[in-house]
Amino acid sequence: MNVRVTASYRDRLNDGRHLHLNGEVVRDAAAEPAFAGAIAAVEAFHRLQKTAPETHLTHGPEGELIPISLSAPRTLEDLARKRIAFKEMADVSFGMLGRTPDFINSAIMAIGVHAEVLGPPAAADFAGNARAYLAACRQNDLFVAHASINPQLDRAQPLHGNANPFCGVRVDRKDARGLWVSGAKMIATLAPVADELLVFNMPGLRPGDEAFAVAFAVPAATEGLHIFGRKPTVRRDLTKADHPLANRMDEVDAYLVLKDVFVPWERVFVFEDTARSDAFYGRSYARHHTGHQGIVRGLAKAELLTGVAMRLAETLGLAGFPNIQEQLGELATYVETLRALILLSEHDATLSEAGVMTPSLPAMQAVRYNFPKMYERMAKVIQSLAAGSMLSTPHWRDLSGEAGDLLRATLSTPALDVETRLKLLNLAWDVSGDGFGQRQVVYEYYHAGDPMRIAAAYYQNYPKQPLGAAVDRALALEG
Amino acid sequence: MNVRVTASYRDRLNDGRHLHLNGEVVRDAAAEPAFAGAIAAVEAFHRLQKTAPETHLTHGPEGELIPISLSAPRTLEDLARKRIAFKEMADVSFGMLGRTPDFINSAIMAIGVHAEVLGPPAAADFAGNARAYLAACRQNDLFVAHASINPQLDRAQPLHGNANPFCGVRVDRKDARGLWVSGAKMIATLAPVADELLVFNMPGLRPGDEAFAVAFAVPAATEGLHIFGRKPTVRRDLTKADHPLANRMDEVDAYLVLKDVFVPWERVFVFEDTARSDAFYGRSYARHHTGHQGIVRGLAKAELLTGVAMRLAETLGLAGFPNIQEQLGELATYVETLRALILLSEHDATLSEAGVMTPSLPAMQAVRYNFPKMYERMAKVIQSLAAGSMLSTPHWRDLSGEAGDLLRATLSTPALDVETRLKLLNLAWDVSGDGFGQRQVVYEYYHAGDPMRIAAAYYQNYPKQPLGAAVDRALALEG
Amino acid sequence: MNVRVTASYRDRLNDGRHLHLNGEVVRDAAAEPAFAGAIAAVEAFHRLQKTAPETHLTHGPEGELIPISLSAPRTLEDLARKRIAFKEMADVSFGMLGRTPDFINSAIMAIGVHAEVLGPPAAADFAGNARAYLAACRQNDLFVAHASINPQLDRAQPLHGNANPFCGVRVDRKDARGLWVSGAKMIATLAPVADELLVFNMPGLRPGDEAFAVAFAVPAATEGLHIFGRKPTVRRDLTKADHPLANRMDEVDAYLVLKDVFVPWERVFVFEDTARSDAFYGRSYARHHTGHQGIVRGLAKAELLTGVAMRLAETLGLAGFPNIQEQLGELATYVETLRALILLSEHDATLSEAGVMTPSLPAMQAVRYNFPKMYERMAKVIQSLAAGSMLSTPHWRDLSGEAGDLLRATLSTPALDVETRLKLLNLAWDVSGDGFGQRQVVYEYYHAGDPMRIAAAYYQNYPKQPLGAAVDRALALEG
Amino acid sequence: MNVRVTASYRDRLNDGRHLHLNGEVVRDAAAEPAFAGAIAAVEAFHRLQKTAPETHLTHGPEGELIPISLSAPRTLEDLARKRIAFKEMADVSFGMLGRTPDFINSAIMAIGVHAEVLGPPAAADFAGNARAYLAACRQNDLFVAHASINPQLDRAQPLHGNANPFCGVRVDRKDARGLWVSGAKMIATLAPVADELLVFNMPGLRPGDEAFAVAFAVPAATEGLHIFGRKPTVRRDLTKADHPLANRMDEVDAYLVLKDVFVPWERVFVFEDTARSDAFYGRSYARHHTGHQGIVRGLAKAELLTGVAMRLAETLGLAGFPNIQEQLGELATYVETLRALILLSEHDATLSEAGVMTPSLPAMQAVRYNFPKMYERMAKVIQSLAAGSMLSTPHWRDLSGEAGDLLRATLSTPALDVETRLKLLNLAWDVSGDGFGQRQVVYEYYHAGDPMRIAAAYYQNYPKQPLGAAVDRALALEG
Repeated sequence: MNVRVTASYRDRLNDGRHLHLNGEVVRDAAAEPAFAGAIAAVEAFHRLQKTAPETHLTHGPEGELIPISLSAPRTLEDLARKRIAFKEMADVSFGMLGRTPDFINSAIMAIGVHAEVLGPPAAADFAGNARAYLAACRQNDLFVAHASINPQLDRAQPLHGNANPFCGVRVDRKDARGLWVSGAKMIATLAPVADELLVFNMPGLRPGDEAFAVAFAVPAATEGLHIFGRKPTVRRDLTKADHPLANRMDEVDAYLVLKDVFVPWERVFVFEDTARSDAFYGRSYARHHTGHQGIVRGLAKAELLTGVAMRLAETLGLAGFPNIQEQLGELATYVETLRALILLSEHDATLSEAGVMTPSLPAMQAVRYNFPKMYERMAKVIQSLAAGSMLSTPHWRDLSGEAGDLLRATLSTPALDVETRLKLLNLAWDVSGDGFGQRQVVYEYYHAGDPMRIAAAYYQNYPKQPLGAAVDRALALEG
Repeated sequence: MNVRVTASYRDRLNDGRHLHLNGEVVRDAAAEPAFAGAIAAVEAFHRLQKTAPETHLTHGPEGELIPISLSAPRTLEDLARKRIAFKEMADVSFGMLGRTPDFINSAIMAIGVHAEVLGPPAAADFAGNARAYLAACRQNDLFVAHASINPQLDRAQPLHGNANPFCGVRVDRKDARGLWVSGAKMIATLAPVADELLVFNMPGLRPGDEAFAVAFAVPAATEGLHIFGRKPTVRRDLTKADHPLANRMDEVDAYLVLKDVFVPWERVFVFEDTARSDAFYGRSYARHHTGHQGIVRGLAKAELLTGVAMRLAETLGLAGFPNIQEQLGELATYVETLRALILLSEHDATLSEAGVMTPSLPAMQAVRYNFPKMYERMAKVIQSLAAGSMLSTPHWRDLSGEAGDLLRATLSTPALDVETRLKLLNLAWDVSGDGFGQRQVVYEYYHAGDPMRIAAAYYQNYPKQPLGAAVDRALALEG
Repeated sequence: MNVRVTASYRDRLNDGRHLHLNGEVVRDAAAEPAFAGAIAAVEAFHRLQKTAPETHLTHGPEGELIPISLSAPRTLEDLARKRIAFKEMADVSFGMLGRTPDFINSAIMAIGVHAEVLGPPAAADFAGNARAYLAACRQNDLFVAHASINPQLDRAQPLHGNANPFCGVRVDRKDARGLWVSGAKMIATLAPVADELLVFNMPGLRPGDEAFAVAFAVPAATEGLHIFGRKPTVRRDLTKADHPLANRMDEVDAYLVLKDVFVPWERVFVFEDTARSDAFYGRSYARHHTGHQGIVRGLAKAELLTGVAMRLAETLGLAGFPNIQEQLGELATYVETLRALILLSEHDATLSEAGVMTPSLPAMQAVRYNFPKMYERMAKVIQSLAAGSMLSTPHWRDLSGEAGDLLRATLSTPALDVETRLKLLNLAWDVSGDGFGQRQVVYEYYHAGDPMRIAAAYYQNYPKQPLGAAVDRALALEG
Repeated sequence: MNVRVTASYRDRLNDGRHLHLNGEVVRDAAAEPAFAGAIAAVEAFHRLQKTAPETHLTHGPEGELIPISLSAPRTLEDLARKRIAFKEMADVSFGMLGRTPDFINSAIMAIGVHAEVLGPPAAADFAGNARAYLAACRQNDLFVAHASINPQLDRAQPLHGNANPFCGVRVDRKDARGLWVSGAKMIATLAPVADELLVFNMPGLRPGDEAFAVAFAVPAATEGLHIFGRKPTVRRDLTKADHPLANRMDEVDAYLVLKDVFVPWERVFVFEDTARSDAFYGRSYARHHTGHQGIVRGLAKAELLTGVAMRLAETLGLAGFPNIQEQLGELATYVETLRALILLSEHDATLSEAGVMTPSLPAMQAVRYNFPKMYERMAKVIQSLAAGSMLSTPHWRDLSGEAGDLLRATLSTPALDVETRLKLLNLAWDVSGDGFGQRQVVYEYYHAGDPMRIAAAYYQNYPKQPLGAAVDRALALEG
């Protein structure tokens, strides 16, 4: 694959992709207001490379400058540099955008560098394709969305047992040039504003699922590929002050339908092979490197929510009550725990067979398992602090209407003028109560898979030796 | 007070009240689309009296027909009848509207019948006023909203210590005709569509708060009274199928400002008396009778959410997994627990000094303390079952757009056609994830006061004798 | 089966049973100090029949006086009478003894009255045997322990797949006189002090388990039956004041081994039939009637623990803190919830095909699922209130030793003399911290089966119609 | 203070101390079986210095060899060395002994090195005394127990408001040689086997408490000092195999009474000064250095409990069930979290004004706040896995009795012979269910103070700047 992109990101979005939103066809994604926040986030990613290149760029294998998220870390210092870049990017959206380019870039890097897990050339040179894809992404700084979760149609059946064949993406036929695939993917975050879509399965396919066992990349504007944006959280009837985050940072999710989509062999990474399909995201260490980005992003989120809880308490006269202080302290312990586990993920990093410094999965999955509970607790504390106040905030424009003086007189305090009060309460509602905030709650619980399975896999893969040794010592006690 | 209302409820709303919404002045509340759901709920209350009078009407003290919620129950059978009427009314909105007329009617009845707790005639005949107000409500089936929660300005200070005097509603001055009051109330649910506003304080005023210790009723259109509707959860850009509840049943909350509002003595129930202010909602048994309505309404809500969780599991192929079954069973135990406590609240009812059959507060407050946790758990289970599916639902109109066939083909299963799928997922999101559902979560936690205080009061007031006796027996064990 | 017992209960225990305790063979159970508490509980059951016959006796089918726990309730009043008797019996041990005679009597009654679920005569007249066994128990007021839980050897395998055939009790062979069985049962509470052992399986056998699918009764002294008492919680080096409950009310559990035990056909209720084995405890309504006893007993326990928490708070100067009050109030809401669900279990009772008034399983299982959490929370609150004080209580005899004056001077307060202080703290430790209390915690979680399975079955069997109807109404909303 | 100790630790215990246990006077602590485990732990501390001096000894200020726990860390490497020594010591008892010498040594070191917080010489040279005390401890490797928690008599009152003056330790009188103090301390762990007692108050004294604001050290055998050991968890009627930990590692707590105890000025560190009393444990960084030991010890505990849970699941055929795997994975995430926070506590360490490398309090207190919940959860999982099996284990000696063959035949499986089965179940019960294990649960919750206060202080002291900055950025969002 040899791609050379010249158009700007924003221009590239007007490419004839089949994009559906709110019952209408979107002709130019760049012009759709509901996507403005998502686009701005990708642009921020590009901008940081310009404004802080020492943090966000590094040298690629041939000396060229590449985004640091696409570089393979070789040392603990490299990991630390990536962490700093991840954090600066996450801070742009307070961690509210989970699938910014650095996320999937981390996976593309890992897969490209460990491409040997895709096997020797067969129907195509899958490993070579993965390496070439990494090179193309590095060269062009493409924004790739990914689609891995299959639609939830009948979870009691394996893919090949579902009555509706769109329960995943499957191979229809092939020829010398490539494959034709059809099917659906449930949730492809940011797909409406991506250059490319990377389609694959999370590990866990079962025998008989071979037809579904594919991984490939296609441009967003591919024929037969339909992108259905979910209903935006953006509220057009409300101002950005009313919804400081929801109206600025909606990370649009999408439902994908593929109908007779052609994929040339050079863009195929896995073909009808359940073991390689599992390896694509697992043994490639993609999970490790996206995990690193993910837990750093989680910290950005935790900092904002804990800060909001503290600010509410401090400005509403609540910060002196011991039970409130306890809750605020509890949240701060979670911030500290996240910091610790990020540190441990690097401290326990190991070199992969390809010489890549690979963050420790146990450290990161400990975040994945526990962060959703922490985040939910943070939202709950915010709800409790601002309960009734949040539920009765007037519209921002009421401040300038004829009634503005009434609001100003009655809602200002020495600690909080009315404008800041409304903004703060609106921020609190956005992160804890409104669709935007609850999407975050749901996202944190499930974006990396069912927590029950995360924990089960954690048990299976945990280095249990020291634990077993303690039991053995206890059973062997004498005297 | 002698009121005789002739206009229809809907016409009465066009009365010149000072109503602010979304930065604009609303001229006629009845014509504002954001209020349609709330108005429909009040109309349903009236309609049930016509379509099922045997359930919703009863005979008043002079033989006239009155809404059963305004009648004083004298027997256990009367309580049971009220429970049935409460449930039918709650089922109209699946319990999502908490302040339908039967709620506050229960309070107005209790205060009117136990008006002696307001004391002997002083500046005015407060007890007589309360009785007259009940009579007027019975005669005209008025819809009264109430405003009791003070703005959360500086909770570290008592009302009289706040820097901003709008931290409550206080007496400015008085003369022979009545009072002038100013101040604010934080959250007056349904005030934009009410006939009348009943303004009072929840028990808990402190010495020094006398100026704030008032209770009175005024028409919604009173001069100096400003009603600020909070931002609606109604989404105008989405259909009712996209938001089955949020776009139909938004229970609009409001912020109230009173500026030099005149209240004639005949509409005053408490005047500069912190003890009577506390008694107004407490010793009047208002809390008991609104509590009865509230826990019955809670059951309606629990039934819907538990049903939604079960339906999701059954149609998405999840109902066969033991861990899912456990969660569904857990939710059902909560439905059963609510049924049990409603039953106990009646079984343990006692006759008040005025001969009113008064439901048991311990039974009802056990619901109040625990229901928010149950409700939150229900929402969480729904979120976990429908997680990604909920987050990627396309717009309802996509079904009829050019892409409708794609959705129909890819999202239909034998268990669930695509229309029902989207409606069910949208319902799930409304009750668990969107602003509408989270307002419900917050509402259930806090509408009856801080759960910490509820539990503390529970301890203080619980009939502890059998518990202490058990301890005494254990301490006295011999042999 | 025609049994006529003449010896006293205590004398009957000296019957040559094979009883092992603390590495020794117990010759006479009645003389073993570790069993004194358990024996006293059975005797209390008998004594109540004498001291309060109007509560604890009723008339049997032929007019004879029988323990009320062996009578078949026909009306709601009958259920209420049983509840009162259950509660008085439970109060003797504050609910700490779960398997007092009224428990298993309730099962024997239900099985006897619904014996038709055991099928028509085959290898034996199983139904007739069950009826005769009930008659014999009524006639002689026998104390029957039961053994239903199989040893936890390899739970990954069905019984017939276990490497060790003692994973349950299985049929070895049979002849015209009866069966020979071998095997083991994990936990037969109070077996060391029982007249008889009733051996059966909880529902859930699998195809292939036929050899294990038996139910029968044998005298405790049967040849080949070995009873291993678990290590007692009784502390011989400590006084009853040091362990007010543990040293008085240890409900001794036992492990049973059966080796070539002969059971005559007249004592067999189920024979190599997995469906009838499941029916023995399920379709016989045994679960319903033991459940009724169980939740009433739970209330006794909850009353004591809540009372202890309150007493600690009140005497240690903690009852004025709002966060402590909240916890005490929370516990009281659980007491109230238990009262409510007991009431509902009777209110929703239905007549069985045999005309027995049968308490509602959904109401009772709601207790079963939630009570363990409540109980654990009660223990946790007690631990938090008495934490360090509980951990440093001196021995009771220190009070009378040379140092007694020091303790008296330093540990007495106006609210609590030193003797009561120590007793109260010891009581707190017994119910919350010591082996005795933790056995209670474990017992409440698991004695009625794995909570996960209870909840899963709850979902499967719950009357879901009203819940589904609410969903249907919501999906059908118009306008 | 110039102490030169020559007798062995064990011999030093026979010093005439006033020691009460089980209602009797203990003449020689070293000969009391109930103290054997505690004594063994102190001896293990000494033995490790001999067997692994490179880990457990280091050079003191004058080049002499001293226990590493008494040395002042100057670098991150020093902290890491201490961590390794702490862990080896903790592993001796699987963390079950919390107050081994390294704990209090860490405090004595911190106070001695930062003695300037005790102020300039006044009634005595308090700072000099603290330095001399550290020197004496280094020279003689004394084992110092500490007593800081006051008796829980009337917590509604400050110390000076309690009716009983033994609510703390207070100054009776003084002269040129020293003080006379009287009072009590609630829980002085290991005091019965200590060389010395260090008596002080945790921070939090109130104005008026000056008489109680003292800190000093006295030999255990001081006149007027009475030590009441709490009732041992050791079970004399059970073997060490029956109680693998309880019968080996009981960390005896004690109640102290001081009656007219003389303390020479050279052993006084704080005198009638509430601010210095608070500083003694706080501003001295004692809390930081004991915290470091404490969280490392917690890790040892977590490893054992998680290992026990895994071993139970693996040997009882439970490890294949997804819900069990989830629980085991959950526990492992806690082990990982502890590792992470230990790492962070060192990573974020700062140099004190005295040049001591001081571990980060926020990292450590995050453990303190959350570890009790983790530990409780670990115990709960163990209880759920081994529930009935744990409750019915026969006595160890039954294995060798006449019934041993029966147990061997019926309880052995390919995965677990009967001896190991019983030991494992007994271990499970010891850590989760018995008095020993529950003391651990209570200890972890409260030994470092009320978790509510820990969290409240956490909030107050947390470096909140990054959190506030995030909120400020969110409130300032433009466009």
